[in-house]
Amino acid sequence: MIAEHDPSPLYAKVEAALTSDIAAGDLSPGSQLPPEDRLIERFGVSRTTVRKAIENLVARGQVEIRRGKGTFVAQRKITQELTELTGFVEDMQALGRTPTARLLDKQVVPADADVARQLAVPPGGLVMRIQRVRLADGVAMSFDETYLPRGIGEKIAAHDLDAEPIFSLLEGKYGVPLTEAEYRLEAVTAAPDVAQALSVDPGSAIFLIERTSYTEGHRPIDYEKLYYRGDLISFVTRLARRSRHRS
Amino acid sequence: MIAEHDPSPLYAKVEAALTSDIAAGDLSPGSQLPPEDRLIERFGVSRTTVRKAIENLVARGQVEIRRGKGTFVAQRKITQELTELTGFVEDMQALGRTPTARLLDKQVVPADADVARQLAVPPGGLVMRIQRVRLADGVAMSFDETYLPRGIGEKIAAHDLDAEPIFSLLEGKYGVPLTEAEYRLEAVTAAPDVAQALSVDPGSAIFLIERTSYTEGHRPIDYEKLYYRGDLISFVTRLARRSRHRS
Repeated sequence: MIAEHDPSPLYAKVEAALTSDIAAGDLSPGSQLPPEDRLIERFGVSRTTVRKAIENLVARGQVEIRRGKGTFVAQRKITQELTELTGFVEDMQALGRTPTARLLDKQVVPADADVARQLAVPPGGLVMRIQRVRLADGVAMSFDETYLPRGIGEKIAAHDLDAEPIFSLLEGKYGVPLTEAEYRLEAVTAAPDVAQALSVDPGSAIFLIERTSYTEGHRPIDYEKLYYRGDLISFVTRLARRSRHRS
Repeated sequence: MIAEHDPSPLYAKVEAALTSDIAAGDLSPGSQLPPEDRLIERFGVSRTTVRKAIENLVARGQVEIRRGKGTFVAQRKITQELTELTGFVEDMQALGRTPTARLLDKQVVPADADVARQLAVPPGGLVMRIQRVRLADGVAMSFDETYLPRGIGEKIAAHDLDAEPIFSLLEGKYGVPLTEAEYRLEAVTAAPDVAQALSVDPGSAIFLIERTSYTEGHRPIDYEKLYYRGDLISFVTRLARRSRHRS
């Protein structure tokens, strides 16, 4: 029962109480929310108030409505720093998650215009393409398409890519240190092949990172398209205001 | 007609030729692609080859299929730097675009849990919410929801927000310099209200930026949810590899 002397609206209190249950783990990710009638009883509020609170939780991505099934606590999004060049395995280990990979395909293909420009090879020239699904604690987080110049690509592809991260192979095994990368960030919807690889519905939100990593001498060595599940990840960074903007 | 002695696959050449037409402006954004038969004739290739080339252009976002209407050259995406704290007007001016705004709503509302945390006010406490559509060269690029502490918010809301950028008002008029911001980047699909504001279909890809801007003393002063049209913008940045990762 919510105390009556607090001036903030009732739905905000129901929302705050449920948010706090979720944060405390009393309502765990993937579990079903108690039915409306139980919430009405627990908080001593109207159905309209409970619905408004749940609507806000949906809008904030805290819970999700599965049609015909009910309302569920959303899987917790991974919050990943976007502040330095790191690979998936490094990222997940930093977050205390267990990274694994599932190799889907590796083959030599002709470079399309994008790949050619990014790797500085002639269009149609041959490059190695490696397709993997990357998992965190067993959940598919991203579908990665990696393009490498053919020479180093064939060496990398000879390894067990379910077990060995490409960044580790490049830097540790083949003496190709990564120095920096250019990132392009986009929001797209999942095409059928990406949806299938990630076990989501086509049209689901995808956070697409196109990344070109460079080695010494600003030589491009690795071009990736990383299709992250939009519902499972968010990226954070901090940017400073340059003084020329200030009045 | 494509020369026969070049070893790269025919579809890659058709793809490259069309990409170059688009880049040169011979095929302008929004225009319809020539029909298959014309492309077959022009390049002297099979229908399968033309289709494979177009399929690749679709996958790369260069062209888009509108059901029942045909294949069109995609609107050129805006490429925006994500390297310092800037406002929409500054961003568009830097890109040579003309920014405008359309105020949808401004009102004092109770802070939900997110807004309260970001602006360091009590949950349910009153804040100013300003909703605007931001346009570049007349095209709606983003739907922005701005939350301000009530005091400064009421001053800002008294201005003509179709004409005056909030960052300029804060810094120029009210002596509140911005120092830095925290960004959270997500890919989501458009909820009905966002879709309506941006004139896109519900379910379209949205690049969501949640941004908390700070003034001196690391005091949060402006919390925004910026819903960018995913099909019209991409963000770029460069990140360095930290030496501890190298072997």
